[in-house]
Amino acid sequence: MSNSLEAIEVNKITLDGKLELECGQDIENIDLVYETYGTLNSDASNAILICHALSGNHHAAGIYQNEERPGWWDALIGPEKAINTNKFFVVCPNNIGGCHGSTGPSSINKQTGKSYGPDFPIITVADWVRCQSMLSDSLGIKVWHAVIGGSLGGMQALQWSISYPDYVLKAGIFAAAAKSSTQNIALNEVAREAIRKDPNFLNGEYIAKGVKPKDGIKTARMLGHITYLSEENMDLRFGRKFQDADSKISGEVDFEVENYLQYKGEKFSESFDANSYIIMTKAMDNYDFAKDDDTLSKSVKNIKASLLIIGFYSDWLYPPERGKEIQVAAIRENINSSYIVLEGEQGHDSFLFKTEKYEEAIKKFID
Amino acid sequence: MSNSLEAIEVNKITLDGKLELECGQDIENIDLVYETYGTLNSDASNAILICHALSGNHHAAGIYQNEERPGWWDALIGPEKAINTNKFFVVCPNNIGGCHGSTGPSSINKQTGKSYGPDFPIITVADWVRCQSMLSDSLGIKVWHAVIGGSLGGMQALQWSISYPDYVLKAGIFAAAAKSSTQNIALNEVAREAIRKDPNFLNGEYIAKGVKPKDGIKTARMLGHITYLSEENMDLRFGRKFQDADSKISGEVDFEVENYLQYKGEKFSESFDANSYIIMTKAMDNYDFAKDDDTLSKSVKNIKASLLIIGFYSDWLYPPERGKEIQVAAIRENINSSYIVLEGEQGHDSFLFKTEKYEEAIKKFID
Repeated sequence: MSNSLEAIEVNKITLDGKLELECGQDIENIDLVYETYGTLNSDASNAILICHALSGNHHAAGIYQNEERPGWWDALIGPEKAINTNKFFVVCPNNIGGCHGSTGPSSINKQTGKSYGPDFPIITVADWVRCQSMLSDSLGIKVWHAVIGGSLGGMQALQWSISYPDYVLKAGIFAAAAKSSTQNIALNEVAREAIRKDPNFLNGEYIAKGVKPKDGIKTARMLGHITYLSEENMDLRFGRKFQDADSKISGEVDFEVENYLQYKGEKFSESFDANSYIIMTKAMDNYDFAKDDDTLSKSVKNIKASLLIIGFYSDWLYPPERGKEIQVAAIRENINSSYIVLEGEQGHDSFLFKTEKYEEAIKKFID
Repeated sequence: MSNSLEAIEVNKITLDGKLELECGQDIENIDLVYETYGTLNSDASNAILICHALSGNHHAAGIYQNEERPGWWDALIGPEKAINTNKFFVVCPNNIGGCHGSTGPSSINKQTGKSYGPDFPIITVADWVRCQSMLSDSLGIKVWHAVIGGSLGGMQALQWSISYPDYVLKAGIFAAAAKSSTQNIALNEVAREAIRKDPNFLNGEYIAKGVKPKDGIKTARMLGHITYLSEENMDLRFGRKFQDADSKISGEVDFEVENYLQYKGEKFSESFDANSYIIMTKAMDNYDFAKDDDTLSKSVKNIKASLLIIGFYSDWLYPPERGKEIQVAAIRENINSSYIVLEGEQGHDSFLFKTEKYEEAIKKFID
């Protein structure tokens, strides 16, 4: 922790005008929260954009005063780290539709004076990327030296290279895919079902009624958590150990792994917004640039960025084969790309953790 | 379907006296429902016991009058089928703790005149096997020619060979394990959490209050269903196809796979009892004859039955490695065993479906 950034710039801007969304609707005067680390150089050629995943946000690195744990990618972003803030100006925006400061379903709709709630429009990965490009403009960044992300963040990095081929030199796509699989969609639907059937969900109108569908979010998160870890990792961490009676969260719990999931789910349910969970999982499900090989190739064709695709053997949510699909299409279209599969002890979550090989791969790629 | 048995004997007996359970509690005068197919020979040497899995029951084969689909293992049980009812007398009991006629939480407690509800005791795989052995006695079957089951049923077949080494000649253990993994437990806990948080669950007292926690059971089943199918199979069946607007179950559904899960979950929630779901998943979680290799060997040591262990490559819930663990222990203790891994297109559910190789393996094993 000692080498975490301490002074973090948290910024909020309002993007003037309308953001037209893929669904046909638009949102006016979007608030966008973001953090930056390091210093933008005079020709604005050292900027790196970090895209966050489902439960991430703009707090990617550094540690706030009195904060227990640093940002979600602090292991890789900082002075002399893989993404070196002594050299690069790193920007991490909070995506719209979420619940951490940027305009989302729990924000006040400036038109109506009430929170959007379930009326918040459907958001796509391409919408996020478009919104991020408006942020580039306001920061005076024409070309990103790199756009990098893991999981849903990796989809955004891929989308950047497709949507704005002239404005991104390198795209780092980690533990991601060109499309969500049927199983991905199915698992997300179970999570959404749990949320929708929470009696406090009230068809998404819970804020107006002053309640919160915590139980549904908790179940959704418990399920999500299982999919982020590998079976082996769960086995090593918890095995079949019984939970001590003293530290049981509830009488229904027998095993340590149950207690852990209960704890994690409960904690998440206190801070995450249910409508945001639905919007973000739908964005993930709807992402599809590999409808068939042709479409993938067509999409990939215009890419000018170099791609670094990283998969993790222990990831069963977005397994390495998904990354390979992207590279196969890239090779076919003569796109400069590297594809690395790392061991990764933490399953899908491996993209969050520093290992020597992972760090080295990222460093070499962006330096 | 034309070769399904048509005349099926559905029986119900009450087992006199107490069944003492592993948890220390007991149940008096248990009702046990079972079906039989074929004819018991004069020396009672042709009996095969079929053990069902979580959502199965005593209706393993044949088709009732006006029934749409035959029993759950009809593909493999019947005249000249893998488990040949022209030759064998096949018995399939409904396990206690369930909700299909044998004593379970939704049954009336003869002591109190009210349904057991959440007071139904904790049941283990060994309890089921003990209960089944009481049925053997009442049927005049000393030695089972074979005890066979898939998934949770496979655990019972294994347990039979351990608990009653002298009373079972062959044990068929399919898509099963000597213990549930950490991930198995974790997934079951998410399902139970969804049930417990259904506002109609009422700490399990829902029958007394005249309601049913259907939403919770539905979510639990949707999740279960994903784990029974392989990722590849889901992809082949549904891919990323959108659901026709006309046949959408609800407005929230976009993809076919979501609609399918919604439909399957809803249907299951109409017939399955929530307390039974909790009891049976707990039995599955608690099963552990492989606490460490030593324990597994010790347990296996006394087995006299020949074992046929079958795993399926596409099964990620109880993958083939789990079956291998049983065989490794068996080999170490000189137990006669065969271990086969079949392709299996349907993931964990593959144990339910007939393929040429699967049929042949079972036939050779029991004949």
